[in-house]
Amino acid sequence: MNDFKKFLEHKAYNLRMNSLIMTSMAGSGHPTSCFSAADLVAAVFFYGMHFDPEHIENPNNDRFILSKGHASPLLYAAWKELGQITEQDLITYRKIDSNLEGHPTLRFPYTEAATGSLGIGLSVGLGMAYAAKMDKRDFYTYVLMGDSELTEGSIWEAAELAPYYKLHNLIGIIDCNRLGQSTETIHDHHLERYAAKFEAFGWETFIIDGHDMYQVMKALDKARAQGRPTMIIAKTIKGYGIEQVENKMGYHGKPFTKEELNEILKELEQRFPEAAEYKSDFKWQPQLPNGEELPKKECIVFSFKTPSYKQNDKIPTRKVYGHALAELGNICNNIVCLDAEVKNSTYADIFEKKHPDRFIQCFIAEQNMVGMAVGLDRRGFIPYVSTFGAFFSRAFDQIRMGAIGNATLRLVGSHAGVSIGQDGPSQMALEDIAMMRTLPESIVLYPSDAVSTYKLVHQMLEYTKGISYLRTTRMATPVIYGVDEEFPVGGCKVVRQSGNDKLCIIGAGVTLFEALKAADRLKKEGIEVSVIDLYSIKPLDTETILSVAQKSGNKVITVEDHYLEGGLGQAITYALRNNNIYIDCLAVNQLPRSGKPEELLAWAGIDSDAIIKKVKNIIS
Amino acid sequence: MNDFKKFLEHKAYNLRMNSLIMTSMAGSGHPTSCFSAADLVAAVFFYGMHFDPEHIENPNNDRFILSKGHASPLLYAAWKELGQITEQDLITYRKIDSNLEGHPTLRFPYTEAATGSLGIGLSVGLGMAYAAKMDKRDFYTYVLMGDSELTEGSIWEAAELAPYYKLHNLIGIIDCNRLGQSTETIHDHHLERYAAKFEAFGWETFIIDGHDMYQVMKALDKARAQGRPTMIIAKTIKGYGIEQVENKMGYHGKPFTKEELNEILKELEQRFPEAAEYKSDFKWQPQLPNGEELPKKECIVFSFKTPSYKQNDKIPTRKVYGHALAELGNICNNIVCLDAEVKNSTYADIFEKKHPDRFIQCFIAEQNMVGMAVGLDRRGFIPYVSTFGAFFSRAFDQIRMGAIGNATLRLVGSHAGVSIGQDGPSQMALEDIAMMRTLPESIVLYPSDAVSTYKLVHQMLEYTKGISYLRTTRMATPVIYGVDEEFPVGGCKVVRQSGNDKLCIIGAGVTLFEALKAADRLKKEGIEVSVIDLYSIKPLDTETILSVAQKSGNKVITVEDHYLEGGLGQAITYALRNNNIYIDCLAVNQLPRSGKPEELLAWAGIDSDAIIKKVKNIIS
Repeated sequence: MNDFKKFLEHKAYNLRMNSLIMTSMAGSGHPTSCFSAADLVAAVFFYGMHFDPEHIENPNNDRFILSKGHASPLLYAAWKELGQITEQDLITYRKIDSNLEGHPTLRFPYTEAATGSLGIGLSVGLGMAYAAKMDKRDFYTYVLMGDSELTEGSIWEAAELAPYYKLHNLIGIIDCNRLGQSTETIHDHHLERYAAKFEAFGWETFIIDGHDMYQVMKALDKARAQGRPTMIIAKTIKGYGIEQVENKMGYHGKPFTKEELNEILKELEQRFPEAAEYKSDFKWQPQLPNGEELPKKECIVFSFKTPSYKQNDKIPTRKVYGHALAELGNICNNIVCLDAEVKNSTYADIFEKKHPDRFIQCFIAEQNMVGMAVGLDRRGFIPYVSTFGAFFSRAFDQIRMGAIGNATLRLVGSHAGVSIGQDGPSQMALEDIAMMRTLPESIVLYPSDAVSTYKLVHQMLEYTKGISYLRTTRMATPVIYGVDEEFPVGGCKVVRQSGNDKLCIIGAGVTLFEALKAADRLKKEGIEVSVIDLYSIKPLDTETILSVAQKSGNKVITVEDHYLEGGLGQAITYALRNNNIYIDCLAVNQLPRSGKPEELLAWAGIDSDAIIKKVKNIIS
Repeated sequence: MNDFKKFLEHKAYNLRMNSLIMTSMAGSGHPTSCFSAADLVAAVFFYGMHFDPEHIENPNNDRFILSKGHASPLLYAAWKELGQITEQDLITYRKIDSNLEGHPTLRFPYTEAATGSLGIGLSVGLGMAYAAKMDKRDFYTYVLMGDSELTEGSIWEAAELAPYYKLHNLIGIIDCNRLGQSTETIHDHHLERYAAKFEAFGWETFIIDGHDMYQVMKALDKARAQGRPTMIIAKTIKGYGIEQVENKMGYHGKPFTKEELNEILKELEQRFPEAAEYKSDFKWQPQLPNGEELPKKECIVFSFKTPSYKQNDKIPTRKVYGHALAELGNICNNIVCLDAEVKNSTYADIFEKKHPDRFIQCFIAEQNMVGMAVGLDRRGFIPYVSTFGAFFSRAFDQIRMGAIGNATLRLVGSHAGVSIGQDGPSQMALEDIAMMRTLPESIVLYPSDAVSTYKLVHQMLEYTKGISYLRTTRMATPVIYGVDEEFPVGGCKVVRQSGNDKLCIIGAGVTLFEALKAADRLKKEGIEVSVIDLYSIKPLDTETILSVAQKSGNKVITVEDHYLEGGLGQAITYALRNNNIYIDCLAVNQLPRSGKPEELLAWAGIDSDAIIKKVKNIIS
């Protein structure tokens, strides 16, 4: 064991040295945050983990998530020590053409999750540990956190759920260097306080000296022998190794200059002479994982039959989501469904009934739910995540970081808009379209009836370039499409068109029916209008919309149960610009209140009466 | 004490009865969630709290926050028992013209905070308790939570901070009815687990039977005698009082029908005969608060002098925020500044140095920080809340709920856009404008130089109708305005205009300088363009923009360091629609990466080169 210890100390030395070089060469970065965790990272990679560094896709590999993403040089340096990247690669750190970014992204192929917004890694790790449990694989997931990020509530959401699901295969490590970016942490070096918290949440805990390699090794050994999730709480020194910055405030995110570098490297060498001059016959071999390397799970749905919904039958689209997902689950056994304790409102419970083993109750903790989904996605599952659309705002940062980490998440938000009625504004999603549209590579879908919902739940499955969002409606809406109708992402449906349209009304979800009502009533008065069902808000079918608008007197009204800002109206206004189309947008423009759905649609000025008034106003 | 107990049991009976009537008459609502907490609420209002129900603005009143907002009938019924509203008011519950909404909003004037998104109340209460401490008032803040919402991480963010600031005046009460909306809670009736958690976080805890009025009274007494925050953990029965729904799944949010109502009311009467037929000489008097009723704090800034910034000096706008706020703090002693442990990046530390007693370190917990700010605002303070713009996405739900609760929050997000450089995408705010624009009554400001920043930090102070957001830049930018220039909200600055402009370029923040560079270079080639500094993105100065655009060949290019969706370009496209203005928008259109600021501006196609290319393209 002494040989191994010396080997690990040497590796830790190399990590420190390379962290120094990388940050000094880049002129930015967080060397002192690397120094505190270098021994921990060396031990995790070269002692704790069972994995095949040559085959990172091996599904039985243990996984490492660097939740304290600002210590990214440690991650890069570790993979250099593993022989997968070169010293030359390291000094590209933070350069615009390098995959070694300031905070890890998936551009660096050995990264498990994009981090940098703190407090997210434990949820992602929890998702991976859960994936292992579902797959009956015995890999472990390690998550390295800083002590500062423990104040993020998302940590405690994950801390609550891991013991609930008895995930002994999740090992957290806290690098307690007691110094945050700008101030001392709440608990300083009182490590027993962290232990008390995690124990109260049901974790096994070990307090160690994070610079004593024996202690680190022993803790890593013990962590794999527990029947429940384990947190290793390591007392460390920020800047450990360079005396002038050790344990001092004011050195967060401060690299040494290139000019200082040589001297500092010398200092490091003098501090750890044995590790620096390490020579040994000790031959390190990765501890290869157990288990067969099974082929990556594939889910190809060749045919997916839509039930024969009867025209004009009224069904809430949220309920159709449940049905469609349950059916998809029959065909595709890596679909999982995550719920934040509203399954009987989102109708995720329909999936649960058919596939209880692939339904994950995350309780009311949306941040952790989305973080877990990122982990499940990374481990080959296909997560559909549903809650009230309004409550996805709770997890916006996790969704944003999911997008940065190229996660393929399928998010389904129910209870869109004022049309939910009496429960009032806190429950109404009115900013979800704006929020989801911002994500790079996202798609935003908003079906109006059962058939389109069913088909779009399937379309989401096919979409693998980023995050997809589907918005569902609380109230029942009539079936308007035949079951053979197709709903490609990026399309729209022209549901009313005559040769004599004076204007085009564009709606989606509930407002489509208001548009149709308005069109019918206008027709009786001799005014023909076209109507478009904008089931795909991002991407937009600009070509069709423009063509219909041009045949409709070059006039468009959009109508949506969402705030004006960033909604479908503004998306269309942008898409149609420079085409001489007159556009007006009906949307929710003030803070809503409780009331009956139809009262609120009228109150907000997005019902058929409001549409008719606006149409007459425009064409008169 | 027995008399008091009987009186309280009677009040609890009335609360149950009225909750029943209200939800049945409305045809929606959560009676069973009211039944579990009725005894607790009766005891808090009529026994625990010291307040003057006739003068709710008395700053010494104890405060009550209903974090489990779906139990709103209890709140309304309590104020009916206090004689402030009538039985007639109660049955307007959930009607469109009623202030008694499904979940409490500030339309009901006795509400302390809009709730309904769970897990938020404790943070708001923490803000109020902190306000009491700063004001040296001895009022207490009570927060009633459900057990289901304890899985929300925001609860643990608040739980961490309350003992850190020794807020003995914060009393939490958990209504542990063990049944969530769709499933049993994680901890069922194992109340000791909740106690262990809160104790590990530093709270005093009391476990009681929430239907035993003696125990409730005793716990409320003891809670006021502790030197630290107290959590009363009450074992309760969901639906307590109506046998057919008691302690059973499947009755969440299910009112009895109007037809059932009479029978159910009879059942309630039979269950609690003594409380129902209560007659007594016991005369309840409110326990009036101690302390003088001081006049409401006012902060009127008659003159606020901008420092004589030298033209062309380079200063980061984030730093100017710190200076301006510190100066405002000199004039206005109810300004407080909340930080999420990034004060040396946002420069909130400049305020801290001048006003350490009004600087609140919230550590890395953005959700709780925003929730606290809502509480501080309600108690007469003027919170400025700053962190990285990207990390406000973490608190979007709290911001959304703040807007629903008419909170006047001043949010300042630094490190906008790709121009932050090497730290990479996780740290770049690229969706903040879209997010903040959606909020009803919000304003969104984005200054480019020191003078405009200084003045806008002051403008935020004057804005009291809702949430204001100011976006700052990491890099230093040159001073371009004289100190006498004014920057009214809803305005813009025409910074270049000739009689011969071929096009108008609109930028803000860093991109304004790219626009100016482009204009200068184009001028040398004989192409004149106008340039607008869009420092106010919401509201927009449509009139000026349109007028300048019309004098600039009816052509506009917008350029922004933000994603295209929901950003300033789409805001302008919407505002200028139907005016025959040609518009193109330069914005960030893909997932960014690490690199140098100027490299990234070029990479994103939002630098002067990209602008020039686009201009030539359009006018050729």
